[in-house]
Amino acid sequence: MDLLDQAIVSSGAAAYVGYASSIDPDMRYLTRFQTTDPVLYLKRPDERGLVVVSQMEYARAASESTFAPLTRAEAGLFTHWKDPSDRWSAMAAAIAGLAKGDVLVPPSFPIALARGLESHCRVVVDEGTIQRLRAVKVPGEVQEIRAVQRANEAGMAAAVGMIRAAEVRDGLLVLGGEELTAERVRAECHVTLLSYGCRAADTIVACGEQAAQPHQRGTGPLAADQPIVIDIFPEDELSGYFADMTRTVVKGEPSDEVRGMFEAVVEAKALAIARIRAGVSGAEVHQAVVDHFAEHGYASEGAAGFTHNLGHGVGLEVHELPTLGPQGSLLEVGNVVTVEPGLYLPGVGGVRLEDLGLVTPHGFENFTRFDEDLVL
Amino acid sequence: MDLLDQAIVSSGAAAYVGYASSIDPDMRYLTRFQTTDPVLYLKRPDERGLVVVSQMEYARAASESTFAPLTRAEAGLFTHWKDPSDRWSAMAAAIAGLAKGDVLVPPSFPIALARGLESHCRVVVDEGTIQRLRAVKVPGEVQEIRAVQRANEAGMAAAVGMIRAAEVRDGLLVLGGEELTAERVRAECHVTLLSYGCRAADTIVACGEQAAQPHQRGTGPLAADQPIVIDIFPEDELSGYFADMTRTVVKGEPSDEVRGMFEAVVEAKALAIARIRAGVSGAEVHQAVVDHFAEHGYASEGAAGFTHNLGHGVGLEVHELPTLGPQGSLLEVGNVVTVEPGLYLPGVGGVRLEDLGLVTPHGFENFTRFDEDLVL
Repeated sequence: MDLLDQAIVSSGAAAYVGYASSIDPDMRYLTRFQTTDPVLYLKRPDERGLVVVSQMEYARAASESTFAPLTRAEAGLFTHWKDPSDRWSAMAAAIAGLAKGDVLVPPSFPIALARGLESHCRVVVDEGTIQRLRAVKVPGEVQEIRAVQRANEAGMAAAVGMIRAAEVRDGLLVLGGEELTAERVRAECHVTLLSYGCRAADTIVACGEQAAQPHQRGTGPLAADQPIVIDIFPEDELSGYFADMTRTVVKGEPSDEVRGMFEAVVEAKALAIARIRAGVSGAEVHQAVVDHFAEHGYASEGAAGFTHNLGHGVGLEVHELPTLGPQGSLLEVGNVVTVEPGLYLPGVGGVRLEDLGLVTPHGFENFTRFDEDLVL
Repeated sequence: MDLLDQAIVSSGAAAYVGYASSIDPDMRYLTRFQTTDPVLYLKRPDERGLVVVSQMEYARAASESTFAPLTRAEAGLFTHWKDPSDRWSAMAAAIAGLAKGDVLVPPSFPIALARGLESHCRVVVDEGTIQRLRAVKVPGEVQEIRAVQRANEAGMAAAVGMIRAAEVRDGLLVLGGEELTAERVRAECHVTLLSYGCRAADTIVACGEQAAQPHQRGTGPLAADQPIVIDIFPEDELSGYFADMTRTVVKGEPSDEVRGMFEAVVEAKALAIARIRAGVSGAEVHQAVVDHFAEHGYASEGAAGFTHNLGHGVGLEVHELPTLGPQGSLLEVGNVVTVEPGLYLPGVGGVRLEDLGLVTPHGFENFTRFDEDLVL
């Protein structure tokens, strides 16, 4: 019996029910079906899951999903649908008919549908069973993510290549006779990723002061002698799996302060990777990096220093379990995690390096093959 | 007092509360802040909304969002957070402290957070106030969407241009010495869109039998003499607004059956556009197209014929209110809607044409400027 069936049984429910589009990664994971409009997923222990789709999506769901779909009509939805405003109660009645008992739902389950269900049965809120399932990757998933990191390396090579090829004029980077901007680097990187069937959004190309904010996307001209943080997290268009990588480069001469931050970050990544293996907690690995930074005079609280978690799981979401941070629990074989120490100083800039790899019984199998030279 | 304040007051609540990332278009609309991790939004009538973000996102939220952000610490979240497992109850306690009374939440509000709140106050489920707000665009939004449709025209021109330039060998399309596939056309289209700062996902390039399923993405070699449905719905990377357009083309000689379907669809689009104006219902416009197809011998039920709604609103989601379909209510000035009649015959293929435009007091202002010739 798998984790989900166990969760259903131990909650006293008759079925697990989800209602979301494939934008919801739990739903994507359960149904393996890509759809813009929400679909209903229902599973009873020891039975195959059901996916309820619109008539229009039926043929596609039958060929793409791992499940035999039902149309909304077959699920009994329309027999309960009296007027457009009772959509939620109609769906609740149809679900109750299929579940034949109490239901277990994810924490993100829509309150409106839950209220409708409560007039038929007990609604029990699950605490992250699907996220725990998703955190442990099967070999096919590992292969998908590894392939996306290959594409990501090509994207990073395109971005770094432009900065390397640039000339410096009046302190700014120039390529092909025009100012080299964050936007140009991002566009080239995205076009490269597309040729690998991957899409990227919000790729960070943040220079100087912009790089002092870890999630600042970056905009405008790139400057010489300043750290440029490049953080790319593409998604394979078909599989839905992500990868994640960050490098920091300087065209020209970094300040001593930036050099010092960079060295501390290189060491932090190496020492974290050396500690990762199944059975070690994410909190412990994070703390080792906090301690390392403290020894070098960098804080891990407030707006300067090491201001974020050391890493996170990657899969159908770019941020998922497990956490390498103060709340991180024990790592398991099959976790795919980032290791991304960073240091940020307002007025100076930021430095971050990020690799992605697999937690194994004895260590960390790094998927990432890309130079980490600071100076281009 | 705007619609949201009215909804709060008439529900008897003290505040409206949302909890989602900007993947949730309602949240994106309310906060105007782009974020991967969920943020908390809270609004009391006649006060400005609050956005609660992590420390790491604070500086970015302060510069990008229309609201003054609070950190989680400032919102009192950490005073309630005793251990990692009571995340939802800690957040509920913090929300209760800010709301100072009952709360109104959207239908999609997470059940886990709602359950936490129920031990502090009454939780009232709103029925789509934000979606109704979003359905009526202000001039700035109209301008954003119009700009995305300009980019979309360039993407469509790239796709159609490849098919036009192709040669036919053994019934298949060949371009630059290689088979022209759905994948190649899609990639070229996406690269073109990127150069306009737009990303597209799941663009449909579906040929022949594949085109008989309205949402089939399409794969493999493109054939001569067969209808190819191209449906592109890009999103501007910065603004988050979508556009939507579909054309159907044939390289070579369409069958009489496809020609007949195409003529009926061209007429359907024209007659629908002629009927659209504020005060007419989406149901009425849809029915006019159903009647028109019936006169030409095409059904609007089951798996063949006109199997979907005539159109939908477009904005921060590619499918939003209002609906041009059997359940469609009265159109309002400021609605931005697609008009997309289509006909699908298993064994033959599909034909769809789709324009996008604005509902005005007296008609429909079409944003779409693109030929609709069937034969290239």
